[in-house]
Amino acid sequence: MNTETNILVFLECLKTRFKQNFNSSLVIREQHGRDESSFTVPPPDAVVFAESTQDVVDAVTLCAAHGVPVIPFGVGSSLEGHLLAIHGGVSLDVSRMNQVLAIHAEDLTVTVQPGVTRKALNEAIKHTGLFFPIDPGADASLGGMVATRASGTNAVRYGTMRENVLALEVVTASGEVIRTGTRAKKSSAGYDLTRLMVGSEGTLGVVTEITLKVYPLPEAISAAICSFPSIEAAVRTTIQIIQMGIPIARVELIDANTVRMLNQYAKLSLHEGAMLLMEFHGSPASVKEQAEAVQEISTEHGGEAFEWATTPEERTRLWTARHNAYFAGVQSRPGCKVISTDTCVPISRLADCLLESVAQADASGIPYFLVGHVGDGNFHFGYLLDPNNPAERETAEALNHQLVARALALEGTCSGEHGVGLHKMDFLVAETGEGAVNMMRTIKQALDPKNIMNPGKIFSLKT
Amino acid sequence: MNTETNILVFLECLKTRFKQNFNSSLVIREQHGRDESSFTVPPPDAVVFAESTQDVVDAVTLCAAHGVPVIPFGVGSSLEGHLLAIHGGVSLDVSRMNQVLAIHAEDLTVTVQPGVTRKALNEAIKHTGLFFPIDPGADASLGGMVATRASGTNAVRYGTMRENVLALEVVTASGEVIRTGTRAKKSSAGYDLTRLMVGSEGTLGVVTEITLKVYPLPEAISAAICSFPSIEAAVRTTIQIIQMGIPIARVELIDANTVRMLNQYAKLSLHEGAMLLMEFHGSPASVKEQAEAVQEISTEHGGEAFEWATTPEERTRLWTARHNAYFAGVQSRPGCKVISTDTCVPISRLADCLLESVAQADASGIPYFLVGHVGDGNFHFGYLLDPNNPAERETAEALNHQLVARALALEGTCSGEHGVGLHKMDFLVAETGEGAVNMMRTIKQALDPKNIMNPGKIFSLKT
Repeated sequence: MNTETNILVFLECLKTRFKQNFNSSLVIREQHGRDESSFTVPPPDAVVFAESTQDVVDAVTLCAAHGVPVIPFGVGSSLEGHLLAIHGGVSLDVSRMNQVLAIHAEDLTVTVQPGVTRKALNEAIKHTGLFFPIDPGADASLGGMVATRASGTNAVRYGTMRENVLALEVVTASGEVIRTGTRAKKSSAGYDLTRLMVGSEGTLGVVTEITLKVYPLPEAISAAICSFPSIEAAVRTTIQIIQMGIPIARVELIDANTVRMLNQYAKLSLHEGAMLLMEFHGSPASVKEQAEAVQEISTEHGGEAFEWATTPEERTRLWTARHNAYFAGVQSRPGCKVISTDTCVPISRLADCLLESVAQADASGIPYFLVGHVGDGNFHFGYLLDPNNPAERETAEALNHQLVARALALEGTCSGEHGVGLHKMDFLVAETGEGAVNMMRTIKQALDPKNIMNPGKIFSLKT
Repeated sequence: MNTETNILVFLECLKTRFKQNFNSSLVIREQHGRDESSFTVPPPDAVVFAESTQDVVDAVTLCAAHGVPVIPFGVGSSLEGHLLAIHGGVSLDVSRMNQVLAIHAEDLTVTVQPGVTRKALNEAIKHTGLFFPIDPGADASLGGMVATRASGTNAVRYGTMRENVLALEVVTASGEVIRTGTRAKKSSAGYDLTRLMVGSEGTLGVVTEITLKVYPLPEAISAAICSFPSIEAAVRTTIQIIQMGIPIARVELIDANTVRMLNQYAKLSLHEGAMLLMEFHGSPASVKEQAEAVQEISTEHGGEAFEWATTPEERTRLWTARHNAYFAGVQSRPGCKVISTDTCVPISRLADCLLESVAQADASGIPYFLVGHVGDGNFHFGYLLDPNNPAERETAEALNHQLVARALALEGTCSGEHGVGLHKMDFLVAETGEGAVNMMRTIKQALDPKNIMNPGKIFSLKT
């Protein structure tokens, strides 16, 4: 966008096309100009509420004609600044594209619009005996989950969005509609455009339809919590479970301090030690077998106070507690801002990576919560910062840098599931090297020559 | 390459650099100028045997400087003309890059050079109690399996190369070495370059290192064959097994005629009806449970003559028989050429797709064998053609066209696992539409502006 006049002309065009679905009020723009990250930047110039693929095509085409940035928006639950309008432009809100378009129970696939949230999808398919397992905690939109290559608690058994998206409909930067795959379970037909789009954070196009794998609800489900004398004991238990190939569905770590926050936040009375939350899926016999094996391993590492949750209500209570860790952390320090870490390392390196990071965080004096999808080698510190104390932010960012450096040295990644956004651009270069990032830049420039699709995220175009 | 002189100058440069690892004898060139497809084209201008990543860098750099095509070569088992030097150039043979570089048993990962074959990998990790499950039949090189996004008999439980490659080292078209990932089990760090390379058939770079997932050998394995009164009964049994979510490891179909070919080829005495070959992996209790459930479903569909194979020797005999179907087919019509089909459809559409195609093939009078990774909805006709009878080829290609059209109408893909190569370029356009193929072209042109990496495969650059 060149001049002030141009933007006004452009906004007038957009308003003419979208009428009541165009909004440039400050309150709506501000709502679309922030996410769960701790960045503050000016809001987008306008918000368009898309109700169809054609709406997305028209919005992108208008933006392309005027060289204006387009930022796809789902529910705003991303954590790394993905949604922020750092170069101005239009927030393209797809939350009203919230139809489940097809349920093919007989093929274990569904096709949805991008504004459907994971909970809404599970509600819509409940009657079929199927479920969609990917669970990042927040009730994120599935479009957003595609964009960040999300995963969460069930990934240890069911994989991430990488493994569970079969095909996409995408509006490209030139406003063209393409399909990236079919409903076949596997394919060797050409480049894997589906997985190029999964994790591209809105920088290569706008996702308008998603075909996903779904799974039969397990015949039996059993969940348990177990307390450990130390984080190390809990982590070593996890490593052994994974190395033995036990097909556990979820294995989550919460440290003692975070358990304390949770007890306070949700009026619970969990034992205040390092804790594993686990869940087993399968036939009744297989669940029993898994649970017995895991209980044995846990006991060897000093695990005690096993508590079983077999009814759906008990399990919901358990996982709600887990998902409340973020809010419990925030409430433990009123007014704080959170910086989340997201490293993921090979399972054998988990203890090394985690324990050293805990020691450093403890030494820093910065309050934090600690949770982990430890079955995948992925964990999150949430550093709880006083926004009026720049020294704290500096300390937290230094801790995060050291943690990422440690994870990379242990052959891990800077981001297990949150994505790069604005926050991890330097980490990405440290992880992959300039060569791979240059390849990403080349692809971006080829597919979005005007650089209008969520510009300035994942990497800087300047080398 | 512009003139005859240029190619001579270029070959001299290549020879100077690679000495005894350069070969331009006709016999070696011809060996590298054919694959298992039925195409015949002139061989490459020369063959270079790479022994290191640096060799690949130097070969690609020289080819780039002279604008000469580079065609990566593993063991030559691809089926769709992937390896053919349709624009001349250099066949870059990586079969001597056959080292297993790292075995991280504690993380269930290995890192290998691209010339390691799947059987060699399994031999190398046998002592760790781990195995690599992807089994396309042929003892393909892992580099080639990356290139075609291969899968095979175990994919129903363990996924394909798409799900099992964690990271790659790739030499790009400009001779740069990049790494596409880490050993972390999951990552949201930037574009998924790993999966962009998996299935790119050598058109975007040369793979020089591969990090793969491996799996603990199941505590118990049990295999069975079961005869059915019709193909339909076998297929409906399969559909029900998959829809019930039974975690079967393998479920393969062989039609009655192919069983007859196998009996003759390998001196077996299998019951000559439509047959399912199945394998179950898990704990002893879980294998028993799966096998019982499957036996019940099979019996409901008229399955009989269940034969169990529980010792490794019996299982090897069974799977060797399955993998010999191709050769048994070829031997049943001495001197014939094979055209393989490779459609894959959602499981609920499998009966429709397969039965109609069988009826058409039977009506055509063309001899064929029929095998299928039916648990994934993927099956292969091998039409057995008299190479001296062009009418037969025409009929077979017409059958294949009709089959692909049928699969696409049923929301399937033209290629489940063989790749596009030369043979399925039109099918790819029919499947994805020009929009998606144009996106592939744009990526190819951006990453390989001189069009030297295996040019002319997957799609034509001219639209």
